[in-house]
Amino acid sequence: DDMVDHSDDELWAREPYRDKRLIVKTAKPFNAEIPPEYQIAHFDTPNELFYVRQHMPVPELEAGSHQLRVVLAPTQQVSSLSLAQLARLPRAIVRAALMCAGNRRSEMHQVKPVKGISWAGGAISNAVWSGVYLRDVLLHCGVDPNDTEGKHVILTGADIDATGQNFSTSIPLQLALDPNAQVILATHMNGQPLPPDHGCPLRAVVPGAPAVRSVKWLECITVSEEESSSHWHKKDYRSFNPSTTWEDADFESAPPVYSLPVTSAVCEPRHGDTVRVRDGHIEAKGYAYSGGGARVLRVDVSGDRGVSWRTATLQQDHAPPRTHYAWTLWTARLPVPAHCDQMEIWVKATDSNFNTQPENFDHIWNIRGILSNAYHKIKIRLQH
Amino acid sequence: DDMVDHSDDELWAREPYRDKRLIVKTAKPFNAEIPPEYQIAHFDTPNELFYVRQHMPVPELEAGSHQLRVVLAPTQQVSSLSLAQLARLPRAIVRAALMCAGNRRSEMHQVKPVKGISWAGGAISNAVWSGVYLRDVLLHCGVDPNDTEGKHVILTGADIDATGQNFSTSIPLQLALDPNAQVILATHMNGQPLPPDHGCPLRAVVPGAPAVRSVKWLECITVSEEESSSHWHKKDYRSFNPSTTWEDADFESAPPVYSLPVTSAVCEPRHGDTVRVRDGHIEAKGYAYSGGGARVLRVDVSGDRGVSWRTATLQQDHAPPRTHYAWTLWTARLPVPAHCDQMEIWVKATDSNFNTQPENFDHIWNIRGILSNAYHKIKIRLQH
Ligand SMILES: [Mo]
Ligand SMILES: [Mo]
Repeated sequence: DDMVDHSDDELWAREPYRDKRLIVKTAKPFNAEIPPEYQIAHFDTPNELFYVRQHMPVPELEAGSHQLRVVLAPTQQVSSLSLAQLARLPRAIVRAALMCAGNRRSEMHQVKPVKGISWAGGAISNAVWSGVYLRDVLLHCGVDPNDTEGKHVILTGADIDATGQNFSTSIPLQLALDPNAQVILATHMNGQPLPPDHGCPLRAVVPGAPAVRSVKWLECITVSEEESSSHWHKKDYRSFNPSTTWEDADFESAPPVYSLPVTSAVCEPRHGDTVRVRDGHIEAKGYAYSGGGARVLRVDVSGDRGVSWRTATLQQDHAPPRTHYAWTLWTARLPVPAHCDQMEIWVKATDSNFNTQPENFDHIWNIRGILSNAYHKIKIRLQH
Repeated sequence: DDMVDHSDDELWAREPYRDKRLIVKTAKPFNAEIPPEYQIAHFDTPNELFYVRQHMPVPELEAGSHQLRVVLAPTQQVSSLSLAQLARLPRAIVRAALMCAGNRRSEMHQVKPVKGISWAGGAISNAVWSGVYLRDVLLHCGVDPNDTEGKHVILTGADIDATGQNFSTSIPLQLALDPNAQVILATHMNGQPLPPDHGCPLRAVVPGAPAVRSVKWLECITVSEEESSSHWHKKDYRSFNPSTTWEDADFESAPPVYSLPVTSAVCEPRHGDTVRVRDGHIEAKGYAYSGGGARVLRVDVSGDRGVSWRTATLQQDHAPPRTHYAWTLWTARLPVPAHCDQMEIWVKATDSNFNTQPENFDHIWNIRGILSNAYHKIKIRLQH
């Protein structure tokens, strides 16, 4: 768990204003979901409704004076770049969903308890991010693209925990330099300067990766032989099989999560709703997403616990193969038997690698409750 | 089904010699699996043991006189390249498994019948392919890398069906040009000239894609606004949900399969074997694979129907993120309760996008029986 000093009110006195529609999971640090009805209301989530995941108090930074340090270990060659200097590099734009690795953890928790914020399906939103390519920044600072083997890019934010450690994680240098990966340093979100909750004035955006890699309030980039040594990097966001316990778990040898599996969720109706049947049908809507540049190819929806499946209509943006980073919104029409007064809705997505979701959580369960991508299943009542 | 004239013996008179250890599924055309014990015996499958998937009789081509035509539609600009001319381009090497999209179809068939060759798990093998990058060939012939949207590369082989049509399929031009995708035109397999069964003297290798895209006996490449119009491309290797019937299936609107999902199989022991227990354990071995450049990160094996999982030891080659195309071999040691005389072994793999396999075939079932990647489950007897 994050080392946060909750006794010091002063730390939290200058938190930004938050939209009242967000569903607050924890107040200090601030973690909040976007309500499902707002996920499907916009393809690009309005900035004020974008889910928020903080580890610490929000730092206050000035765009005008902000400097990004770039350190090349082992020589420790240091560059320092203002936002104005960064802006001289070619402009980069990527439409990408960001999703917390713990999105839908609450469903996995029901199978067997896991540690972490009890996210429902609202820890994912979609935006158009703009700034410059991390690749261009690294090449500008003298990184050798032919000497990448085993190297990492450590991303450090301005947010600080109670022990004085800055938030930090890392990604492989090869990923940072891969043109397909489209890793950017963003100054803008949906055409607006980044809001404080989303990293003002500069954040990394690592499309297709768990959002933890998209470090906010970015202060320093270090190219290193080592991964980040922070506990956020070393002791979290790693995956284990269902038999691994907190006592067994060897975090050092478990591979870090740098990409997210295919997932989907029903946003409308919601679990427990009463839905009016029209012309023998009801309509369901939601989102689907796959990390690593994969595109969602098909969303199948069942109203009879998997006996039959309907293919949903998809709303998605266009991108070349292996570089699809936005989410997909879907709508399906489901037939309802005449005398049926309740119904279970299941959704599963298939991506461009033809990977699909597991049917349930039993065999993907893990101590940290991440990568919780089984079929989303809800129950509703029907009104004829 | 392939249009093959079985009445004309002359067509089949010059088929190449085949290793007697291959497991023949159909003789004309020749389709044969590698036995599971040979899959795990070598990381790179010896050429004579590599599984064979033919649609028609094997053409006889001469390396010395072979010409590759490259046609750029709509201008119909044609280049013709000998193998000697191709060899002047930079040398390309890729270690890649090839897997038939129908591998493990026999297991899906048991749930509900599907059409196609009843492959067990032997329609996958691994090799080092060398030749030149398709990207370099296309750029050499004048393809504009900035005009790729909606274009396709049609790959046509010298094998001809009973209606006179050459085998042909296509891949998106953007995929063909993607350096990460490492699509090559291969002249060599594991350091030897391609054997007749594997496309002598020239074949495409599209790593991470279903093997049908890796066209053998390659004669012609056409860059076109259209996908291949062949029935192999238009009427096969497309995926549907389990509710789609042959009557319903709209092949034109279904997306072609250009990448394969994560899969795994137990090769030793085999279903029905009697296995001697040593020190309270048995050992299991097999392969795992994921398409689209994903790497297998973890293989979990269960001896108690998923109640507990052991992580297997992996043998795999090294490759940068998103460009891992070889298979993975695995070994696991499973504990056996003292008085147990039979056991079920389950295996599932997790790839670098943290996608994993579905538990069973029910909800991935499809009319053509492709993408059959549920957990592999076998039953054995134990001898203490
Ligand atoms: Mo996260
Ligand atoms: Mo195939």
